[in-house]
Amino acid sequence: MSPATGRIPPDVASLADYERHALQRLDAARVAWLQGGAADGLTVQANQRAWQGLPLQPRVLRPLAHGHTRIERPGLRLPHPIMLAPVAYLRLVHPDGELATAMAAAAQGAGLVLSTQASVPMERVAELVLGEAERGPLWFQLYAMAQREHTLQLVQRAEAAGFEALVLTVDAPVQGARDAERRAGFRLPADVRAVNLQGLALPGMAAADAAAPGLAAGLCGGLLAHAPTWSDIAWLKAHTRLPLWLKGITHPLDAQQAQALGVDGLIVSNHGGRVLDTMPATAALLPAVRQAVGPEWPVLVDGGIRRGTDVLKALALGADAVLVGRPHVHALAVAGALGVAHAIRLLRDEFEIALALTGCATPAEVSSAVLSSAVLTSAERGG
Amino acid sequence: MSPATGRIPPDVASLADYERHALQRLDAARVAWLQGGAADGLTVQANQRAWQGLPLQPRVLRPLAHGHTRIERPGLRLPHPIMLAPVAYLRLVHPDGELATAMAAAAQGAGLVLSTQASVPMERVAELVLGEAERGPLWFQLYAMAQREHTLQLVQRAEAAGFEALVLTVDAPVQGARDAERRAGFRLPADVRAVNLQGLALPGMAAADAAAPGLAAGLCGGLLAHAPTWSDIAWLKAHTRLPLWLKGITHPLDAQQAQALGVDGLIVSNHGGRVLDTMPATAALLPAVRQAVGPEWPVLVDGGIRRGTDVLKALALGADAVLVGRPHVHALAVAGALGVAHAIRLLRDEFEIALALTGCATPAEVSSAVLSSAVLTSAERGG
Amino acid sequence: MSPATGRIPPDVASLADYERHALQRLDAARVAWLQGGAADGLTVQANQRAWQGLPLQPRVLRPLAHGHTRIERPGLRLPHPIMLAPVAYLRLVHPDGELATAMAAAAQGAGLVLSTQASVPMERVAELVLGEAERGPLWFQLYAMAQREHTLQLVQRAEAAGFEALVLTVDAPVQGARDAERRAGFRLPADVRAVNLQGLALPGMAAADAAAPGLAAGLCGGLLAHAPTWSDIAWLKAHTRLPLWLKGITHPLDAQQAQALGVDGLIVSNHGGRVLDTMPATAALLPAVRQAVGPEWPVLVDGGIRRGTDVLKALALGADAVLVGRPHVHALAVAGALGVAHAIRLLRDEFEIALALTGCATPAEVSSAVLSSAVLTSAERGG
Amino acid sequence: MSPATGRIPPDVASLADYERHALQRLDAARVAWLQGGAADGLTVQANQRAWQGLPLQPRVLRPLAHGHTRIERPGLRLPHPIMLAPVAYLRLVHPDGELATAMAAAAQGAGLVLSTQASVPMERVAELVLGEAERGPLWFQLYAMAQREHTLQLVQRAEAAGFEALVLTVDAPVQGARDAERRAGFRLPADVRAVNLQGLALPGMAAADAAAPGLAAGLCGGLLAHAPTWSDIAWLKAHTRLPLWLKGITHPLDAQQAQALGVDGLIVSNHGGRVLDTMPATAALLPAVRQAVGPEWPVLVDGGIRRGTDVLKALALGADAVLVGRPHVHALAVAGALGVAHAIRLLRDEFEIALALTGCATPAEVSSAVLSSAVLTSAERGG
Repeated sequence: MSPATGRIPPDVASLADYERHALQRLDAARVAWLQGGAADGLTVQANQRAWQGLPLQPRVLRPLAHGHTRIERPGLRLPHPIMLAPVAYLRLVHPDGELATAMAAAAQGAGLVLSTQASVPMERVAELVLGEAERGPLWFQLYAMAQREHTLQLVQRAEAAGFEALVLTVDAPVQGARDAERRAGFRLPADVRAVNLQGLALPGMAAADAAAPGLAAGLCGGLLAHAPTWSDIAWLKAHTRLPLWLKGITHPLDAQQAQALGVDGLIVSNHGGRVLDTMPATAALLPAVRQAVGPEWPVLVDGGIRRGTDVLKALALGADAVLVGRPHVHALAVAGALGVAHAIRLLRDEFEIALALTGCATPAEVSSAVLSSAVLTSAERGG
Repeated sequence: MSPATGRIPPDVASLADYERHALQRLDAARVAWLQGGAADGLTVQANQRAWQGLPLQPRVLRPLAHGHTRIERPGLRLPHPIMLAPVAYLRLVHPDGELATAMAAAAQGAGLVLSTQASVPMERVAELVLGEAERGPLWFQLYAMAQREHTLQLVQRAEAAGFEALVLTVDAPVQGARDAERRAGFRLPADVRAVNLQGLALPGMAAADAAAPGLAAGLCGGLLAHAPTWSDIAWLKAHTRLPLWLKGITHPLDAQQAQALGVDGLIVSNHGGRVLDTMPATAALLPAVRQAVGPEWPVLVDGGIRRGTDVLKALALGADAVLVGRPHVHALAVAGALGVAHAIRLLRDEFEIALALTGCATPAEVSSAVLSSAVLTSAERGG
Repeated sequence: MSPATGRIPPDVASLADYERHALQRLDAARVAWLQGGAADGLTVQANQRAWQGLPLQPRVLRPLAHGHTRIERPGLRLPHPIMLAPVAYLRLVHPDGELATAMAAAAQGAGLVLSTQASVPMERVAELVLGEAERGPLWFQLYAMAQREHTLQLVQRAEAAGFEALVLTVDAPVQGARDAERRAGFRLPADVRAVNLQGLALPGMAAADAAAPGLAAGLCGGLLAHAPTWSDIAWLKAHTRLPLWLKGITHPLDAQQAQALGVDGLIVSNHGGRVLDTMPATAALLPAVRQAVGPEWPVLVDGGIRRGTDVLKALALGADAVLVGRPHVHALAVAGALGVAHAIRLLRDEFEIALALTGCATPAEVSSAVLSSAVLTSAERGG
Repeated sequence: MSPATGRIPPDVASLADYERHALQRLDAARVAWLQGGAADGLTVQANQRAWQGLPLQPRVLRPLAHGHTRIERPGLRLPHPIMLAPVAYLRLVHPDGELATAMAAAAQGAGLVLSTQASVPMERVAELVLGEAERGPLWFQLYAMAQREHTLQLVQRAEAAGFEALVLTVDAPVQGARDAERRAGFRLPADVRAVNLQGLALPGMAAADAAAPGLAAGLCGGLLAHAPTWSDIAWLKAHTRLPLWLKGITHPLDAQQAQALGVDGLIVSNHGGRVLDTMPATAALLPAVRQAVGPEWPVLVDGGIRRGTDVLKALALGADAVLVGRPHVHALAVAGALGVAHAIRLLRDEFEIALALTGCATPAEVSSAVLSSAVLTSAERGG
């Protein structure tokens, strides 16, 4: 049995506490895999700091009765604006893996985006989640496969299992060269695999398992030739009855292109800083994307969300909801399903408090007015 | 007897020295309670850094004879512009608690705002203070109770005891979720209680004593329904003969609303960074509030004041006076009443020196001209 | 035999890893010589941080087939935009010295600029490189000698050996006073010498070997009298059939002067921060130089390039290619020729990935559009 | 005999090295006295960082023959633009005290401003200096005494001894409350005194020797009444035949007032950060002062000068020369007169190199054009 027996340590008061405990429990290679970002990890840091750096402006004595946290938009109905981002191979940190995470998400009303590299069968996840009364939506994440028929097999399996939308990750035509993993010699153990991709092949996938220093010469050439393009989006849209979201859009023109092709929504993401280092924080990228697609089209954001105040700020900058990635893995590693449920609850409670303190009774009342325009002096930013 | 026997350590030269000594003497849970801010403590840091970051511009060789430190405005007469902010449960750090603090404040001419959660009866504080010749004003801080009759009981008791104004804290409709306290497992000891609130109930007050991880689900819902609104201010104003100040106003529109309702003055405050993290520093919030209410209406400020130069800068940005919170608790913990008196004296002396060095003979001569417009180069702000 | 036996440590995933290993293997004096910058090393730090601080803007789903990394401009044809900058005395870190570096560069298609202070004969380097099929260009770096006939001897020898361009370093009329070297008491060992300068004299060259504290009084006076001027450039241009590049140009007017004199290209450089401390990073200096000389004239840049993203950003700011200095010495110290080849390969692979992720199939597609205009919040820049 | 026997440690390559050695040799109380600034020492840090943060722009290949470092202006002729600032009680760090410093200054052509609180008789200093052929000017610093006849006694003694100008310090009507000294319990030893002030009294002087926590209540009141005003300047100007400089002017209007009263020059200074903390760096204050008094009137600057590049930048911002304070005390503590001479030489050599590398043959060629306008990216300033 795993040491993660489902007990919540008594000193856990925030997501950062789960991270601290998780880093103590996981071995160095798993830590490198989970925490590492591309190259020097600058974008990983930027993501969190960007939310922290946005100042909030409270309002006092406003009527808050009849408040709630629901998101109710065409194409997106959520009990609260917190969803779980896709993370591969969750059995690396807990024997129950994605099953524990899915149970916790359903119990806490959090939407779940299952990774295409999940370490349990997608059908088992769907069975667990779909019967829950208070659950959030259940979506399936995928990459464009090297061969379209492989993509189609995945899509049809997800449709049959009951997934409610597809999330195509488009920001990683190549596997990011994550130095931390390579330094730590990270390799998947024999009993943890991307079970839903058996017999299929991702472009450049081999690189993920390669611990050899340097990338093989052929990889880059091959990659340039096989990366998906906008025509693959149109094709995929035509071959599924599910709503299609794109994950990893950050340029306003790319957002408009997606909208024009009938995509159903998008996720502003820099892949948690794991793909291209020195990308801006998603908080810095979000406003221009929202501006480009208009106020009605669904836009989510992930990257660096660690506090309820971060969730509030994401809404203030134009997101309809947020996804959290590494934090749910930290909680899973520490206390299994109970930990994940608790982590979601902590974040949601913090969000409710932030909502109330900025004078908003519901998410629909959140606007850029909750952000302060008070000019901070230079020294506040210094050391 | 407490180890805080009233001896001032020989190496105390500033408020920071009292803080250093206090942190050595208090146990970890009390330190978490006293020092902790909301969430990641970013606003706590911002408060101090903001004052430090405002550059001062000296003037030389100006006539300084006949200078003084008095504040003389309609509705606010003070021997000097330093008051003590309300802090709960002072018997946590010294057996004499608020009695020691009140004696010291009265002896040093510092106004005192007694916390509604004081750990000694408010009447005993009033008795000690009101007879002192050189004292500053004596005010009583309170929250809107869950039931108006409870609020009224408190108000009438304060009036009867001789308090000279009411300070209603409006920035905390919920108890802030202070992670540091929760991590440290802080609980009030049996012999320290909010003796003036016996039989009364604050909204959300239970949460303050809850060490369990996470907030109870019912708290947030309940809170949204019971938080006070502007109509409670009008009601309170109509039910007391005392001047009414609001503490925790930071938005210019809220300030104007308060002014329109006949409130007598306000305190720009972010509750020492203890309620909503990532709020701007009060130094950044103060100018817009002063601008909104005009030059004549009384405006105080607290948050991060640690130096006489900070006091001077607060006046330069539009405050009539300042309140200090944690510093008087540090001094109380270290040396009891003598420590508090000494701390006030240190701050006042520093203020006088700063006044003289910027060429001002009195507080009334302080304006934004004491702040330098010299452009600092980028590297001064870097590391 | 040296401990640098050509084995690549298994945990090397980036140039920073080579640096880490090299610092462990070299003695303190060699570390001071290699790593040290002028004075307080502020420009050394600024160089790296400047590239890191430029944010990249990805594009997705664009056609990347038929991509390549070639640079094809009049006067500059390269397999990829990475060249090796001249560094003196490479036998200080590996017995094979410049011969190992030259073999690695030729094998990996990296252009090589041999230092005039190379510790092996220039002819042996040329023999090794010129026969390689996939090699980049081979250039010879020199300083203006105290006597023109000495300069001419060097030039004619380089021409005879087959070097394809001359690179005159103009930013160091004096030897920088590198405090770190002086503190560490760095001296050249007896068996490492500038073998190509036997019998010639550089202006101020003696200072480089002087470990005495302080510079000799006569140095500065002498230096001011003997430093080269623009007339020496015209003279040199008239006395060689090779293309002439100037290295160390940072002012737009100096760039235009060089262009007007018929110089063939220039290298924006602050000498790796080794000459004048508090110069801006080369990333900050490059755009104005490119602006001054127009889009067609060859401009290279060095200083702080450590990542493929840095190479991409240099191109985005107007460079045709980059040079790396210290990194190839780190790799040489750790693993000889194999290390240098591997380091070049790592950097090139990173560059290809960055190219693809920003939606560019070739270097010619890179423009300032790959740099993000997303406004980062103040806190991202803070600590 | 003192351990400072006049040997220069072999690893001294810059003023920072003297500082490092001095901090190791002096006891904690002397370190607190020498290094300490007012309050939190923010201005002490700002001074050095401001110079470092100004970026330099090199020029190449310009004619540098016949260069020199002389300053030749009406009212100010110097061999080079480096002078020694007044520092009190130099016998605290070396038995020869001001005599050693004066010999070194004279030998290295550095102007000397002797402190009124010197620990040796002013006449002995004058005797040592005035006979040196290559010396810089010899000035005497003083404060306005509590009684004008005391001031006059000092002035007449300085005139008689041969001092060539008076420097009246005007930025310290009170002794700064230097917390570090008070914490360390600094007291003057019995054998180190302000021998030139025997029988005279400075306003507030007692405070400098008071180690008691807190300032005496009477100090501030007394100070306000006795601080000098502009009428004292006019009086002093009328009672001496020597040129009169004011030290500690930072406001443009104060500078113009001084000019209008016939003062002969001024020193932009924040007293090394020792008087009013959070004043801007002198580098930030200098340009507005120069602007206010026009290009011809003599203006010096001190505060944070540690490098030859700092000297160059001060000239670029409008200063005619600079003064260094703590650095000459560090060198004195480490190696006596020889150390001070060496420190001056190091700084002068660095200045000459900086002059040459920015393409200037003489100080008169220095202008704001040596400062770079290259825009640094945000990350260069971050951590």
